[in-house]
Amino acid sequence: MDLLEGIHTRRSVRVYKNAPVDEAKVNDCLAAAMAAPSAGNQQPWQFVVIADRTKLDAIPGFHPYAAMVKKAPLAIVVCGDLSREKYKGFWVQDCSAATQNLLLAAHAMGLGAVWCGLYPDESRVDGMRKLLGLPETVVPLALIPIGWPSEACSRIDRFDAKRVHHDGWTA
Amino acid sequence: MDLLEGIHTRRSVRVYKNAPVDEAKVNDCLAAAMAAPSAGNQQPWQFVVIADRTKLDAIPGFHPYAAMVKKAPLAIVVCGDLSREKYKGFWVQDCSAATQNLLLAAHAMGLGAVWCGLYPDESRVDGMRKLLGLPETVVPLALIPIGWPSEACSRIDRFDAKRVHHDGWTA
Repeated sequence: MDLLEGIHTRRSVRVYKNAPVDEAKVNDCLAAAMAAPSAGNQQPWQFVVIADRTKLDAIPGFHPYAAMVKKAPLAIVVCGDLSREKYKGFWVQDCSAATQNLLLAAHAMGLGAVWCGLYPDESRVDGMRKLLGLPETVVPLALIPIGWPSEACSRIDRFDAKRVHHDGWTA
Repeated sequence: MDLLEGIHTRRSVRVYKNAPVDEAKVNDCLAAAMAAPSAGNQQPWQFVVIADRTKLDAIPGFHPYAAMVKKAPLAIVVCGDLSREKYKGFWVQDCSAATQNLLLAAHAMGLGAVWCGLYPDESRVDGMRKLLGLPETVVPLALIPIGWPSEACSRIDRFDAKRVHHDGWTA
């Protein structure tokens, strides 16, 4: 898939076919995530792949917008590892870049995925922390349900010239 | 450029040829940025394209890691627009996803770029805010110098199996 085309045809996919995703594709998604830039190249991320049905089904109990995970074959939780931060406060940006790479890689392989926010919502962070037994230094940032999409994605154009300013603020 | 290949060959490019970047390519970078997902699809971002030489040269005065901007033909400042946030606290993630798209799009077109952190460093945020005359609700997140790279990028492999956990934390 062409890179620019992929950026513009990626959509949030919330409905999946009842079909498994093989481990090689999951690892390709994770490798793409880990190719993201990070502050000082500290790579302050950790990933938890959830395929256990009971754990997946428990997630909507603490996340109001994650019902689709009940029909997803797996989900990846992108986490910040605060013990690896050299430049404090940048881990959210680093892990978000990794998450975007992950979403694009899934799309490139024909998979569908959606970014469900966790951090900084305390109840979602606590719920995920308990479900996965995460240590205190590991903060769950985003939940990414993944599966084979049941519908094709269409190209979107969100370009808005009013959001672009030149050499200073122009209201 | 292939999407997965592009993700793995993108590098932080800090040395540029003395050559301009035309506006169409800048707009393609911005369109890619605006194709990112965001919480509630609120797209809480604004972009300032800096091509004014005096303004570019002033940036290292308040940013210790931005010396390369003096040799870059332009830079884009990705900003969060807090007035557009419906789900509070997610703007950093939204704008970071947009920034990663922007970096990948630049790479796809043969351009080189680098993510220089601003937020949450207060002195960098204040410096950029004054330089660009940003309103209080607009927070500069990242500075992205862009130019034609003076060296080719090599593929990187940052995959680390120790960062991958299954169905729960495994230290």
